[in-house]
Amino acid sequence: MMQPTRIGLIGYGYWGPNLARNFHALANAQLVAIADADAARLAEPARLFHARTYTDANEILRDPTLDAVAIATPARTHFDLARAALERGKHVLVEKPLAMNSREARTLIALAAEKQRMLMVGHTFEYNPAVWKIRELIAARALGDVYYIYSNRVNLGRVQQDINALWSIAPHDVSILLYVLGALPLDVSARGAAYVGDHVEDVVFVTLSFPNKVIAHIHASWLDPSKVRQMTIVGSEKMIVYDDVDPEARLRIYDKGVYKRGDAYGEFQLKVHSGDITIPKLEMTEPLHNECAHFIECIRENKTPRTDGENGLRVVRVLEAAQESLEKNGATVPIR
Amino acid sequence: MMQPTRIGLIGYGYWGPNLARNFHALANAQLVAIADADAARLAEPARLFHARTYTDANEILRDPTLDAVAIATPARTHFDLARAALERGKHVLVEKPLAMNSREARTLIALAAEKQRMLMVGHTFEYNPAVWKIRELIAARALGDVYYIYSNRVNLGRVQQDINALWSIAPHDVSILLYVLGALPLDVSARGAAYVGDHVEDVVFVTLSFPNKVIAHIHASWLDPSKVRQMTIVGSEKMIVYDDVDPEARLRIYDKGVYKRGDAYGEFQLKVHSGDITIPKLEMTEPLHNECAHFIECIRENKTPRTDGENGLRVVRVLEAAQESLEKNGATVPIR
Amino acid sequence: MMQPTRIGLIGYGYWGPNLARNFHALANAQLVAIADADAARLAEPARLFHARTYTDANEILRDPTLDAVAIATPARTHFDLARAALERGKHVLVEKPLAMNSREARTLIALAAEKQRMLMVGHTFEYNPAVWKIRELIAARALGDVYYIYSNRVNLGRVQQDINALWSIAPHDVSILLYVLGALPLDVSARGAAYVGDHVEDVVFVTLSFPNKVIAHIHASWLDPSKVRQMTIVGSEKMIVYDDVDPEARLRIYDKGVYKRGDAYGEFQLKVHSGDITIPKLEMTEPLHNECAHFIECIRENKTPRTDGENGLRVVRVLEAAQESLEKNGATVPIR
Amino acid sequence: MMQPTRIGLIGYGYWGPNLARNFHALANAQLVAIADADAARLAEPARLFHARTYTDANEILRDPTLDAVAIATPARTHFDLARAALERGKHVLVEKPLAMNSREARTLIALAAEKQRMLMVGHTFEYNPAVWKIRELIAARALGDVYYIYSNRVNLGRVQQDINALWSIAPHDVSILLYVLGALPLDVSARGAAYVGDHVEDVVFVTLSFPNKVIAHIHASWLDPSKVRQMTIVGSEKMIVYDDVDPEARLRIYDKGVYKRGDAYGEFQLKVHSGDITIPKLEMTEPLHNECAHFIECIRENKTPRTDGENGLRVVRVLEAAQESLEKNGATVPIR
Repeated sequence: MMQPTRIGLIGYGYWGPNLARNFHALANAQLVAIADADAARLAEPARLFHARTYTDANEILRDPTLDAVAIATPARTHFDLARAALERGKHVLVEKPLAMNSREARTLIALAAEKQRMLMVGHTFEYNPAVWKIRELIAARALGDVYYIYSNRVNLGRVQQDINALWSIAPHDVSILLYVLGALPLDVSARGAAYVGDHVEDVVFVTLSFPNKVIAHIHASWLDPSKVRQMTIVGSEKMIVYDDVDPEARLRIYDKGVYKRGDAYGEFQLKVHSGDITIPKLEMTEPLHNECAHFIECIRENKTPRTDGENGLRVVRVLEAAQESLEKNGATVPIR
Repeated sequence: MMQPTRIGLIGYGYWGPNLARNFHALANAQLVAIADADAARLAEPARLFHARTYTDANEILRDPTLDAVAIATPARTHFDLARAALERGKHVLVEKPLAMNSREARTLIALAAEKQRMLMVGHTFEYNPAVWKIRELIAARALGDVYYIYSNRVNLGRVQQDINALWSIAPHDVSILLYVLGALPLDVSARGAAYVGDHVEDVVFVTLSFPNKVIAHIHASWLDPSKVRQMTIVGSEKMIVYDDVDPEARLRIYDKGVYKRGDAYGEFQLKVHSGDITIPKLEMTEPLHNECAHFIECIRENKTPRTDGENGLRVVRVLEAAQESLEKNGATVPIR
Repeated sequence: MMQPTRIGLIGYGYWGPNLARNFHALANAQLVAIADADAARLAEPARLFHARTYTDANEILRDPTLDAVAIATPARTHFDLARAALERGKHVLVEKPLAMNSREARTLIALAAEKQRMLMVGHTFEYNPAVWKIRELIAARALGDVYYIYSNRVNLGRVQQDINALWSIAPHDVSILLYVLGALPLDVSARGAAYVGDHVEDVVFVTLSFPNKVIAHIHASWLDPSKVRQMTIVGSEKMIVYDDVDPEARLRIYDKGVYKRGDAYGEFQLKVHSGDITIPKLEMTEPLHNECAHFIECIRENKTPRTDGENGLRVVRVLEAAQESLEKNGATVPIR
Repeated sequence: MMQPTRIGLIGYGYWGPNLARNFHALANAQLVAIADADAARLAEPARLFHARTYTDANEILRDPTLDAVAIATPARTHFDLARAALERGKHVLVEKPLAMNSREARTLIALAAEKQRMLMVGHTFEYNPAVWKIRELIAARALGDVYYIYSNRVNLGRVQQDINALWSIAPHDVSILLYVLGALPLDVSARGAAYVGDHVEDVVFVTLSFPNKVIAHIHASWLDPSKVRQMTIVGSEKMIVYDDVDPEARLRIYDKGVYKRGDAYGEFQLKVHSGDITIPKLEMTEPLHNECAHFIECIRENKTPRTDGENGLRVVRVLEAAQESLEKNGATVPIR
């Protein structure tokens, strides 16, 4: 049997503990070391995971015994840390967003190719069985034509001061949309406002036009009273409500729709039908477990990960255009 | 005691029966006559309300014994019917929207003034005790600063072929927003798409900027799988979720918020607190009952109704600007 | 065309207005007269239904022009009023319970047979499309073997001073159970307590044993904080949750169950499977409308109503035994 | 600083992993060894917790370096294992129920006293902040008089073949009831049925009479379609709904009630009032974490645990009486 893949984790703040727990639970991986600038955070993981701990990320970057590095630090540091890790020949799992602009993202992709190392982005929802099911239903045309999708991802959560709600929350929605539709949007518009700070938008409303007249809409905020993670996909024949916080009914498939029929005279008639609602049984596994296991598997079997650098770049391109729209007070910005 | 106010109703399709039922239930009004172009619809109200019925609206317009006319016909006919009724000296209650553009709305206001008759618009939600409570809480500054509001009003309902979801559904949201904020928006942008028909938007997303950085967002659609009528108001100190289809908890008031504190060095710190949720007891009465009773009361006591012509005009001005934005692919349009 | 069936209604308190509204809406019936001892209640129905009104029920009982009488008075008066109406040759619809004991119920049945008049009990839930669906699924063995059923019917509602929660609320549950199972229970036990008054139980817990080891349990109360009307039917292969106050999902059918398999050695193994949940589309019509229409139809076409006197008697027999158990502190009482 | 308390865990099936995870997370405890008869289960904890693992519980019982033993094995083995551990001078945390009858429970209590070791039962809900709040509200008479309590604890879960739903599920409800009411019931009656197996009740309905006319009712089942853990406490002035699976609203406090007022003539009048609903903010910590931390703290500081042997015995006495009632087809059995 091969030795476990040796992992170092940089960042043990909000998301890092989840990565640590999941890597620790994998039989074919070993979480060897954890770094966080805040020494006070390191006592817990030292005890829980028997991992070495450091306050300096360089201890991990230059450790020759580590195969891979997972990066769960503030978004603005992703690029530098991922580049440094790739340059030292580590495989890299970096939290979303991959980088703060597409130029940086492309640099990382090129570097990974040059170093023949894996670059994977932590778009967790692409490892969520409920999202897999939505993609499968759309691909099988079970919904008929997809008309529009809207997503509500809000919370009273961490108010960030370095990146806005677009870059902090909406990457999830963009990643899901690109994944289930299998397409890039044509253009984006976004409006938002900063309330708590002066320049960091706490809430954003984003509209995306996809090919075939599909519209998507995202509402992201960290100032909302309760945690909502809901996405509705409306098709000509069926519709899906995906509620990520309802364990009893993550997906509801509505067998009702509206479509038109042409008649002999060129007139059309509206047909509305409504029918049963089905809550399909999903074999739920923790998405982050799936993601971490996929990362290790891709390393060990030399596969391209599902959320590779190109995937991360596409999300960044959409965010970049949305950011431009936000700065132009909602003007429509094409995805080049 | 005064004689009951004599009412004629034009339009007995979707909404007309509700008006008829409510006017019939009032002790100080008498529903004398009902007109609808579709004769098949008239047997029921004749039996239920002992009202005279006609297929020609003119029978009602020229009946000299009627004090007032209620108009519940397709939106594009509102202007002509309301004008005709005012010209014949009737008080008028017209369903929303008051008219299809602000010029027409102004014509009706001027005519009502000239004829000294009452012109009232059926913005039902301004007669809803839950909406009253929201306005009261905002006015009392119980929420602190209002940050943003978003509204989701969707259904799998009547697919209209003459007016789009903006003019059919969103008047409710616009009317509520103007009412609870006590202000007109500065500008509006809107995007939407037509799926069932070729030119009539089935779904629209509208963003409105109000003074003091308040943003409001409306999502309206008649293609959604289930009936949602939810509005969330986020303030610096409290937040409200208003769910019009949850009789057990129409309003939830969240005692949590986010605000900033400046410190001695010009830095600010984020304070997040969350606390109890309260579902206040509301004395709910049917909003349409309140509206009909208010209409009769204003006629009998010569008062200005809460949703008078000016109120209806303000809503039409916002819709008009949103329609312009829709036609310009989401460009921001100021409210002049 | 036949003349409309002429109806008199006795009792215009809590339930009477609903009967009046539904009879008034039927094309083949005419609500001619309404009696209630409280004169203050009569102004409204006089206006709404153009009905004659009386404070003395005898005015209705002796009106020779009336074909039928509906009785919606306090339970303890049902027997006397129903008997008087039958004796005067009226068809009778009496609210549940049919009477306060089985002797009285049998007297009414015999009298109706003698006078060749229809005797129907207002077990509304037997006219509810959701209940029809449950009966149909059980009859088709879609649930496999029925294991147990429990019902929760509670509210903060009218605190009655003449009859307890068993006789006031539980008749609904008993009627549904007998209807969907198509069987009488073998025995009953009941416990309860009186809090508001000294002798009238505000809350009761009733357990019923049906043939084939089916157990049913009823919890009825008028002191509970919120309105719950939920019944769960657990079968070996599927289960149903019937929530009468959830218009979006009145029935949820769970495709999961537990059953045993014998093996070659006489051992058994437990197989648990869980699967999709389906919310079937129901064509909902107001149950009371269905009930009133059925009453008129049975009169006009000389049919036996679904909830005839025998049906009402069966419910009374179960209530009677439960009352006996209540008085014996929960002792099990057989249904003779 | 003291050395961490050294723990051995016996049983790594359904509940053991939760105990292991929580003990492992405590800074002042060390999970040294885990035993389970099924060797296949032991690879995971060896990796996760760096614990020694055994298939023979005696390895743990006779390890002199262990301070305490946690027992999470099938209920019928609790007594023997707890006795053996106490005899060897270990502190003991045993899962609920403490034993299968009161005689055994008393034996354990006496042995713990003799050996001067701690005996604690894992009544987890007594370490749940929501339950603490209920007890506090009742004690402060915030509900007025407590009228009745009913609990619904059902699931489609593990179908047990050695103990019935009364002994497997209802210990939670009994423990909560005794804790929040601070009293033992006077008598108990129970009915149930065995469907999957021939002799093991899958569902039970239990009614308990407490002093002051307080009635409690428990419905426990492992054959129900969905997970429900709901308890309703009805008082004369307020009511509480405690929903353990709703993280957004674990407790709802209804400010409505029913009470009576005597008048000058000895008559009473019913006053019903309903008011606001409050969802209090709870500082939720994982109850099992609280329980494990309490166990360690009591050992280290030589305190009597909240759920000591006497507490466990009281629960067993109630279960014992309920079992007797079950075998007597629901006859009322006093708590001696």
